Amino acid sequence: MKITKNNENRAILPEPTIRRLPWYLSYVRMLDHLHVEYVSSTQISKELNVQSSQIAKDLSLLNVKGKTRIGYEVSSLVAELEDFLGFNRQHDAVVIGVGSLGTALMQDRGLEHYGLNIVAGFDVRPEVIGQNLGGLPVFDINDLLSWQRDHHVSIAIITVPVDQAQDAADRAIDSGVTALWNFTPYRIKAPQDVVIANTSIYAHLAIIYNRMQQTFIDRE
Amino acid sequence: MKITKNNENRAILPEPTIRRLPWYLSYVRMLDHLHVEYVSSTQISKELNVQSSQIAKDLSLLNVKGKTRIGYEVSSLVAELEDFLGFNRQHDAVVIGVGSLGTALMQDRGLEHYGLNIVAGFDVRPEVIGQNLGGLPVFDINDLLSWQRDHHVSIAIITVPVDQAQDAADRAIDSGVTALWNFTPYRIKAPQDVVIANTSIYAHLAIIYNRMQQTFIDRE
Repeated sequence: MKITKNNENRAILPEPTIRRLPWYLSYVRMLDHLHVEYVSSTQISKELNVQSSQIAKDLSLLNVKGKTRIGYEVSSLVAELEDFLGFNRQHDAVVIGVGSLGTALMQDRGLEHYGLNIVAGFDVRPEVIGQNLGGLPVFDINDLLSWQRDHHVSIAIITVPVDQAQDAADRAIDSGVTALWNFTPYRIKAPQDVVIANTSIYAHLAIIYNRMQQTFIDRE
Repeated sequence: MKITKNNENRAILPEPTIRRLPWYLSYVRMLDHLHVEYVSSTQISKELNVQSSQIAKDLSLLNVKGKTRIGYEVSSLVAELEDFLGFNRQHDAVVIGVGSLGTALMQDRGLEHYGLNIVAGFDVRPEVIGQNLGGLPVFDINDLLSWQRDHHVSIAIITVPVDQAQDAADRAIDSGVTALWNFTPYRIKAPQDVVIANTSIYAHLAIIYNRMQQTFIDRE
């Protein structure tokens, strides 16, 4: 595993590692709410079905040391994981495409606990432009460029219909956005230095359908 | 690539292949709307940034043959991909946890184009039980078991708060559900024959934050 450090001395991690860390966080947050003080990698392993050697290796990336026989201090583990994952820092974002999913994301206060601060929505439809959703304004997509001159938001959440995905992404990038969270099944093209995360909910459906067939066969 | 066939003679595919197929589908659906008749793997390759040999290999799994110099017939490709992915067959589902995300999924008619037919929501909160969301009823989670005796729905979409994820999954499985679509960051435990797809939106946020740091360094 090749780990490089950035200027904040934070590791740049491979994707499988980053995917496991939020599992640990959601589990230790739960323990913290239950006022549990210590947790061992063996316990986490049992609970999450990840090998304990893998957990110890993943957690060794953080500024937290487990104590022999006692394990990790739960509250430090929560704080270190949140810090490491960036969930305790505010990242401003705009939603492009205020349909049902875009609206849900704008109204979901839960995302704030993961460092995502949605500040506005943008759309093309006159009937939603000018609305206020959960305290957040919806603007005309044509105003994104000028709006960004004052706001410099770096993340755009793309929740437009699939045939508008590339256009929405292009407008976002032109306005200075450096990261796209793409919820459409379209494969967005962007310059190398733009970060793209694809949350392919339709691909997940295809996987469910395909695996359900498999289960069906296995049971025959 | 090991491919087994099920009783419908449909291939059980590895996850990376299943993830690419919806990209092809969204692109050829778009071409179909534009009344384009033929498309080559080279064209798809350019558009989606996937090697054309990979595309030809993926599409060879379908009952569709490309013609030399002309390519694939767009409308057949749409039909074959939809059939292959299961998007043209109805799969009934329930939503467990009718918060903002659960509500959005229940109201999103777009999912029907991907074969997902949500028929009801379930929740614990008296203020949402008995409501009607986009024509769909919301029931008490305690009634899931008896409701399922008449409905036999096989997919449960888990959109509850993270500390209720395992309980919601257990109730769904007890009621006869064989596939879980988990939107919580919790790692659900289930018997081997239950299909679980995790849509880890928080993991994607962590990846965005981490990669944004990377981009920042690269630019220095």
